[in-house]
Amino acid sequence: MPVAPVEHGMAPGLERNGEQMAGSMAVVSAHAADFVWRAGGTIAKYVRHGWDVNVVIMSLGVRGESASLWRTEGQTYEEVARIRREEATRAAEVLGCRLHFFDLVDYPMEITPEVMDRLVRFFREVRPSIILTHGHKDPFNPDHPVVHKATVEARLLAGAAGVMPEIPPIAPPRLFGFEPHQTEMSEFKPEILVDITADFETKLKAMQCVPTQTYLIEFHRQLAEARGYHARRNGQSRDVKYAEAFQSYVPIVTDMLP
Amino acid sequence: MPVAPVEHGMAPGLERNGEQMAGSMAVVSAHAADFVWRAGGTIAKYVRHGWDVNVVIMSLGVRGESASLWRTEGQTYEEVARIRREEATRAAEVLGCRLHFFDLVDYPMEITPEVMDRLVRFFREVRPSIILTHGHKDPFNPDHPVVHKATVEARLLAGAAGVMPEIPPIAPPRLFGFEPHQTEMSEFKPEILVDITADFETKLKAMQCVPTQTYLIEFHRQLAEARGYHARRNGQSRDVKYAEAFQSYVPIVTDMLP
Amino acid sequence: MPVAPVEHGMAPGLERNGEQMAGSMAVVSAHAADFVWRAGGTIAKYVRHGWDVNVVIMSLGVRGESASLWRTEGQTYEEVARIRREEATRAAEVLGCRLHFFDLVDYPMEITPEVMDRLVRFFREVRPSIILTHGHKDPFNPDHPVVHKATVEARLLAGAAGVMPEIPPIAPPRLFGFEPHQTEMSEFKPEILVDITADFETKLKAMQCVPTQTYLIEFHRQLAEARGYHARRNGQSRDVKYAEAFQSYVPIVTDMLP
Amino acid sequence: MPVAPVEHGMAPGLERNGEQMAGSMAVVSAHAADFVWRAGGTIAKYVRHGWDVNVVIMSLGVRGESASLWRTEGQTYEEVARIRREEATRAAEVLGCRLHFFDLVDYPMEITPEVMDRLVRFFREVRPSIILTHGHKDPFNPDHPVVHKATVEARLLAGAAGVMPEIPPIAPPRLFGFEPHQTEMSEFKPEILVDITADFETKLKAMQCVPTQTYLIEFHRQLAEARGYHARRNGQSRDVKYAEAFQSYVPIVTDMLP
Amino acid sequence: MPVAPVEHGMAPGLERNGEQMAGSMAVVSAHAADFVWRAGGTIAKYVRHGWDVNVVIMSLGVRGESASLWRTEGQTYEEVARIRREEATRAAEVLGCRLHFFDLVDYPMEITPEVMDRLVRFFREVRPSIILTHGHKDPFNPDHPVVHKATVEARLLAGAAGVMPEIPPIAPPRLFGFEPHQTEMSEFKPEILVDITADFETKLKAMQCVPTQTYLIEFHRQLAEARGYHARRNGQSRDVKYAEAFQSYVPIVTDMLP
Amino acid sequence: MPVAPVEHGMAPGLERNGEQMAGSMAVVSAHAADFVWRAGGTIAKYVRHGWDVNVVIMSLGVRGESASLWRTEGQTYEEVARIRREEATRAAEVLGCRLHFFDLVDYPMEITPEVMDRLVRFFREVRPSIILTHGHKDPFNPDHPVVHKATVEARLLAGAAGVMPEIPPIAPPRLFGFEPHQTEMSEFKPEILVDITADFETKLKAMQCVPTQTYLIEFHRQLAEARGYHARRNGQSRDVKYAEAFQSYVPIVTDMLP
Repeated sequence: MPVAPVEHGMAPGLERNGEQMAGSMAVVSAHAADFVWRAGGTIAKYVRHGWDVNVVIMSLGVRGESASLWRTEGQTYEEVARIRREEATRAAEVLGCRLHFFDLVDYPMEITPEVMDRLVRFFREVRPSIILTHGHKDPFNPDHPVVHKATVEARLLAGAAGVMPEIPPIAPPRLFGFEPHQTEMSEFKPEILVDITADFETKLKAMQCVPTQTYLIEFHRQLAEARGYHARRNGQSRDVKYAEAFQSYVPIVTDMLP
Repeated sequence: MPVAPVEHGMAPGLERNGEQMAGSMAVVSAHAADFVWRAGGTIAKYVRHGWDVNVVIMSLGVRGESASLWRTEGQTYEEVARIRREEATRAAEVLGCRLHFFDLVDYPMEITPEVMDRLVRFFREVRPSIILTHGHKDPFNPDHPVVHKATVEARLLAGAAGVMPEIPPIAPPRLFGFEPHQTEMSEFKPEILVDITADFETKLKAMQCVPTQTYLIEFHRQLAEARGYHARRNGQSRDVKYAEAFQSYVPIVTDMLP
Repeated sequence: MPVAPVEHGMAPGLERNGEQMAGSMAVVSAHAADFVWRAGGTIAKYVRHGWDVNVVIMSLGVRGESASLWRTEGQTYEEVARIRREEATRAAEVLGCRLHFFDLVDYPMEITPEVMDRLVRFFREVRPSIILTHGHKDPFNPDHPVVHKATVEARLLAGAAGVMPEIPPIAPPRLFGFEPHQTEMSEFKPEILVDITADFETKLKAMQCVPTQTYLIEFHRQLAEARGYHARRNGQSRDVKYAEAFQSYVPIVTDMLP
Repeated sequence: MPVAPVEHGMAPGLERNGEQMAGSMAVVSAHAADFVWRAGGTIAKYVRHGWDVNVVIMSLGVRGESASLWRTEGQTYEEVARIRREEATRAAEVLGCRLHFFDLVDYPMEITPEVMDRLVRFFREVRPSIILTHGHKDPFNPDHPVVHKATVEARLLAGAAGVMPEIPPIAPPRLFGFEPHQTEMSEFKPEILVDITADFETKLKAMQCVPTQTYLIEFHRQLAEARGYHARRNGQSRDVKYAEAFQSYVPIVTDMLP
Repeated sequence: MPVAPVEHGMAPGLERNGEQMAGSMAVVSAHAADFVWRAGGTIAKYVRHGWDVNVVIMSLGVRGESASLWRTEGQTYEEVARIRREEATRAAEVLGCRLHFFDLVDYPMEITPEVMDRLVRFFREVRPSIILTHGHKDPFNPDHPVVHKATVEARLLAGAAGVMPEIPPIAPPRLFGFEPHQTEMSEFKPEILVDITADFETKLKAMQCVPTQTYLIEFHRQLAEARGYHARRNGQSRDVKYAEAFQSYVPIVTDMLP
Repeated sequence: MPVAPVEHGMAPGLERNGEQMAGSMAVVSAHAADFVWRAGGTIAKYVRHGWDVNVVIMSLGVRGESASLWRTEGQTYEEVARIRREEATRAAEVLGCRLHFFDLVDYPMEITPEVMDRLVRFFREVRPSIILTHGHKDPFNPDHPVVHKATVEARLLAGAAGVMPEIPPIAPPRLFGFEPHQTEMSEFKPEILVDITADFETKLKAMQCVPTQTYLIEFHRQLAEARGYHARRNGQSRDVKYAEAFQSYVPIVTDMLP
């Protein structure tokens, strides 16, 4: 099924390695592998449809999301960082997206003016029509809401004419939030269920590139299955086996009802 | 632009007067003209794209929404009903949708088991993939939340195998709420902005068929313009001049992000 | 201090026993003494300023709010009803308001079409510019939300031209909710704190007319004191000693900010 | 581990077949098997600790929750009812609780004054210190919120002295809501995670007594596993493998923090 | 109509140029013209009634709210700032309020301890009984919530005895939020509708002093008209033609119900 | 009544002065006496049951919560600090808990990376199974939400393996919020009512050690009484005379329902 970027009002003209791209998606991931667990199927699907998908890795999650590696005697920040970067890189190769490492320290994460500038510049460069990132609240993770807030702010700044006047501002991209681990306490609403049945194998392969958090593979397999069940209960098709859930943060402007 | 019903997983096969329809939409309107003010542009657009749009008129709004007619000396329920029915009929002709009058009394409106049965049967017959109706709360109208609740319930009953086992149950249609008059007090969120620029002239003509509430024509013209402004502020295109806003009541199962 | 009803845009002309009234307030009380505990100070103040205050007593609270009387051996519904009616009557005399007994059964309370008609007619007759009643939620009382819903609906019907066309409809009165017993679980917000310092003695006397719920006198004395403390913490004056809290249910149309 | 009912301030003295019971729990289940899927582990645990657990089955779920049975040619309401009653009975035997069939029609369910009376009488008879039932909202099931509302109301009426004065009123039981299928859209909060690891086998056996909804067995096995994961992430113990989640509807009065 | 500041418990004694003022209002505006679009009518009215209205302009909105000026080739921050300052100054002259420029950079805006000190000192000096500022949330503007938070904090610090002990603390002013552009996504509730019919011409003239955002003039004219319509639907008077909406952030302490 | 720490899955082994402790509780108090007013009864009870209770005093509340002391001519920050520290110390002696002064400046309070480190280290050292602190919102106090946020973050960091790898991370403690002064505007829910009847005398004595805020003693006595009333209305026992209310911020993992 061809994807019609013109439906989103996006001016065609994107190019990558001389090839015309169908559209541009940006993903902002707090830690090394968030983009894999939470949006891997959707990313794989958009890549398959010819989109240019660029992922910012804000931090490598060395301090807060690498518990298994710290069990090694004499473990160091640098070694954990090296391993997590390799995992993320391999997973991105499987999914077909490009990574941009911002190398912040995690747990907690600080968004300095320089980081904000870099994020704004990133949005101005990849000019996405869709942004995916973490949700606004997560009582179980100190960094996810920080990244949400930074992304929301950078998206607004990227659209303001007087900010970095040397690069043209972007039109407002749609903004969707990932499903967090404890949805109900995080005020997450699964407003959109993306059918990832055809791309689930790819997601599974990408997840298997992240042995540091190996216990999450089965967790996210079951989650995709549960969301697939919800998709069958909420939609017209009985064929959805796996799905990823997202929350929409801005009004969706559309030609026909979604 | 062709509409691809297959995107919604809807089995093709709808027919009307021997002609294949692109899809089926059901609208449940509390009073005679709610479907015109609140969804006229969207209805016109779907009709233009070949959809079969069926509208239930729960009541004619004789008691609660016909104030101007009651200024006539010696006015009667029957006469007001006659006028409102004619207005609705003319507006529907302009929009191209079919009306189904349930003829309940309004202000307040009572949903008896018979009414519920009739609504379930209606959904089983038109088999919509999309339902539009009022939102869940409206502190300024006693009937709108009643109709919302009835529609939600009928949608669920229409999908239950053991209810009216003689007619096959339907797959769960998507469910969207109209924009009410005082949005903020009604907990309305304009989650979806449908571009109705190309169909606004048709909506305007349909609104002009309803002189009983003539003051609403300018109100809804300005509202469509304000929503068009919001659409330009939220989307990729600068060309949206008029829009209608909807709230989504069930998770949207989708192939690509909306 | 003179009360300026013209500030509320209310056409003067109210009369009672040949005397011009400053304004009209309606109170809808689920049980015999709710109007005393929850709004006694405010009622006394409005009466003192020359307003006509009419209170509907929906039920006498025989089943749900008269526990102490049921400890008497051989107690009957009729006897409890007689006692509660007398208490309410005496309290109303102290406050200076008029009572209208609807004599419904409580716990649970059913709003039949006849009750709704009677409430609409009541509003059309006393033509209030302010209505006080219970809030929208109360997990500890089955009747309070029922009365709230009935009052909201009757207020809307009373303003609709085609309902009881033989009596002219009313302009929309402001609508405030009483403070319930367990505020936080009842979604009550103390948006308005009315200074009842000058009328607290009258409220106390009225409360003392209700020995059936004698334990509530001290409870509400302490509550008025706590709300007085909040008033001093939120306002410009240090002289508020007692206050009653209310929630506003409709936008307040005003000449100057309140 | 002994259960100390005195902690809940419950007067001992419960008896069943001449045996002293540790406490009394009431469960109100909308359909035939809701109590199994949603609270089977917790019920089994309380029974194991000597509690008397009584379950009201409001309806058999013939119309709305028996889709697989309606695929049989010539199926009847009576036959479906017979099968569902047998399944529920067998599951209850496994769990060790007692069933009380109210035999209402489902989809939709109507709570008449007679049903309310019966539910109040039930609470007065079993005198529970804990009640479990459905949550307040469920956009995917028309009956669950109806049963929630009825249970809340019956709980209040059962505590009112003037209602059925011939049976003494009960002290207010704690009230917990089951986990629904689509938690986030149902405003469910997993406030309490009960460790059911030791009773999961029993729950599994009980679920296997309900072949009509066989697909739910694996769904609820995975759910108990996911909630076990959340319990490990939220608690002091690493040994929780399976858990059931509940929402608390009234303030919890307690000796030490839970 | 005379304004009675004593109603608000405010000690009289305010003076400006030797003239007694009826009261003191403070307005905190994130960008150059926010006070005009969002509260121009209300400011004009209070000025007309003899109040001293002081407006803090936190930033000139050079980066985020001056898009039209940046279309000029070779545009600079300083030139845009100069133009915006002139526009604000002219509009304030029309409205009759005094401006206090804080000259922060916008998009994003940082509240340093020095800025907080200055804001606290400002409140201690003008000693307002009413403060107007932006609301707590605005997904479409990064600075508005920052200014809201700063104002809330400064209002509390201004009332604390041990902060700047050399200037006496103030009594807690009432606090109202402006109407933002996308109300429903910003959790704005139009709780108070101020009738600005008599002052609308003045507001219009003030808006016309701000050609940089010329498209907002018609937008806010239509908005004032829509809020006027809501005022007629919610109040006792049919004569309100234009209104401004505000949200109340602290309990309103009052003599009579508003 | 013996307290069974094993119920909370906490590994026994806590020691203080060579004595085995029943459990460990941490309290984070924004100002000098918050822990007394808001949790004094609960602290006294846990101490009585053999728990080790450690309280962090983030600031002495010199600027924001010592108004009465600033009435003294020539008052200084140091003198107020000295007095508040003495009051807190005496109150802690009465309650039996240990204090840890962080000596931050209040009104406003800034959480630097060093403060966060210190708080994380504190949690790693006392290894609590329960944490008490302020709630997430308080429109009347600028510091309480800051302390809430800091505590939530420190609790998460304290559990992360890669943060301060030289000290072992802790298992996730339960997290409860204090009752604030204006509950309804602070989104406080009294989810847990702890019976402090047996410890109220101790709390009263502790409160009397804080003459700087002497007016709060009667306020909190009445509050404990009102919460006692709510406890009787919500629980199985009639003997609760005084209670303290808390809000739960994380799912409660439990053996039996609380």
